[in-house]
Amino acid sequence: MLKKAVILVSGGLDSATVLAIAKSQGYECYALSFDYGQRHDSELEAASRLAKIYDVQEHKIIELGMGEFGGSALTDDEINVPTEKATGIPVTYVPARNTVFLSIALGWAEVLSAWDIFIGVNAVDYSGYPDCRQEFINAFENLANLATKAGVEEGGFKIHTPLINLSKAQIIQKGEALNVDYSETVSCYQANTKGEACGECESCRLRQQGFEKAKVQDPTRYQH
Amino acid sequence: MLKKAVILVSGGLDSATVLAIAKSQGYECYALSFDYGQRHDSELEAASRLAKIYDVQEHKIIELGMGEFGGSALTDDEINVPTEKATGIPVTYVPARNTVFLSIALGWAEVLSAWDIFIGVNAVDYSGYPDCRQEFINAFENLANLATKAGVEEGGFKIHTPLINLSKAQIIQKGEALNVDYSETVSCYQANTKGEACGECESCRLRQQGFEKAKVQDPTRYQH
Repeated sequence: MLKKAVILVSGGLDSATVLAIAKSQGYECYALSFDYGQRHDSELEAASRLAKIYDVQEHKIIELGMGEFGGSALTDDEINVPTEKATGIPVTYVPARNTVFLSIALGWAEVLSAWDIFIGVNAVDYSGYPDCRQEFINAFENLANLATKAGVEEGGFKIHTPLINLSKAQIIQKGEALNVDYSETVSCYQANTKGEACGECESCRLRQQGFEKAKVQDPTRYQH
Repeated sequence: MLKKAVILVSGGLDSATVLAIAKSQGYECYALSFDYGQRHDSELEAASRLAKIYDVQEHKIIELGMGEFGGSALTDDEINVPTEKATGIPVTYVPARNTVFLSIALGWAEVLSAWDIFIGVNAVDYSGYPDCRQEFINAFENLANLATKAGVEEGGFKIHTPLINLSKAQIIQKGEALNVDYSETVSCYQANTKGEACGECESCRLRQQGFEKAKVQDPTRYQH
């Protein structure tokens, strides 16, 4: 029997690579996405395309009313998405996002009897986000094994972060080796309804630089 | 300026007592409830009544598609609510529920600049639930201060669990001293649409015994 894994799939470049990695390691994959009032709905369409391409066992999109809280340029219309390189923690930070996403993934994993959860966090390019660091991941893994019936009785929840120490260029090279079709992914914070990227936001800039440094042709569809 | 706190309010006896405690300690209260496909919707109506009674600053009910995962008698129609005293972890356990609830509370707390989160977990009567133990709460508090911009920059998130070591009778006595109107609360796992309790499920039995032992008259409205 295949080992089951829950994979957090946003529809971006990183999570597409993570899904390809989990698949290449022989896991039976359960893809989990969130509709949390993000501006870039086209990400969710990309997530659905990726779930199909990688023939996942099941893809769930969970609605989450977190946009109501405000406090992030990704969900709050009154804060503009920045186009300059930010210092410190960026305003695009969504409060407690990875904590919430991992918690829900944990709930699904327990129901599925899966011990493995994959998340595409990255401490290099996005070092401003506290919930992308190894220290946070370790604390969550510890929590998972205290929080759940399965964790307490049998232990062994594992949070896999195969991208955590890779640069964007290294992620892209890894994905290329696994034949990830990055034209199917959307990273832009303000993609249009066709899934075309703005080319200007921080996420777009990091992605462009990644393709340049990886010496891989950028397949992103841009608005201009 | 009043200190702000996010209070998890399910509408049951425990969370009503917690809300009264937080209010009595001088916090400006923000009540948070979840609509997660629970069978007992009347709990949410009770939560709204309590939010009004305690004049909270804001009450948010967050929709959460966790019922889709199944695996619990509280959200899965194919599992019956047990009426016998269970041994070990009860089947009414919702996977990773408190982890998810606290994570979302943390997100709201960060946006509000609140450091204090109150939750009515109890390790005595519900000792079968792993996410009601002090060890779990400590692990979550640790996570909260690693997971968030505010936690990393300033530290100081605190998870308050004023009921964790109290028996149901002691909780009721504490609530009585604070004039909590328990007729406004719903604990029953299968209350009807009028909010009347079945009197038979484990939650009803623990509540009845609590009133008996506390020598307080039980104001619960029963179906028979």
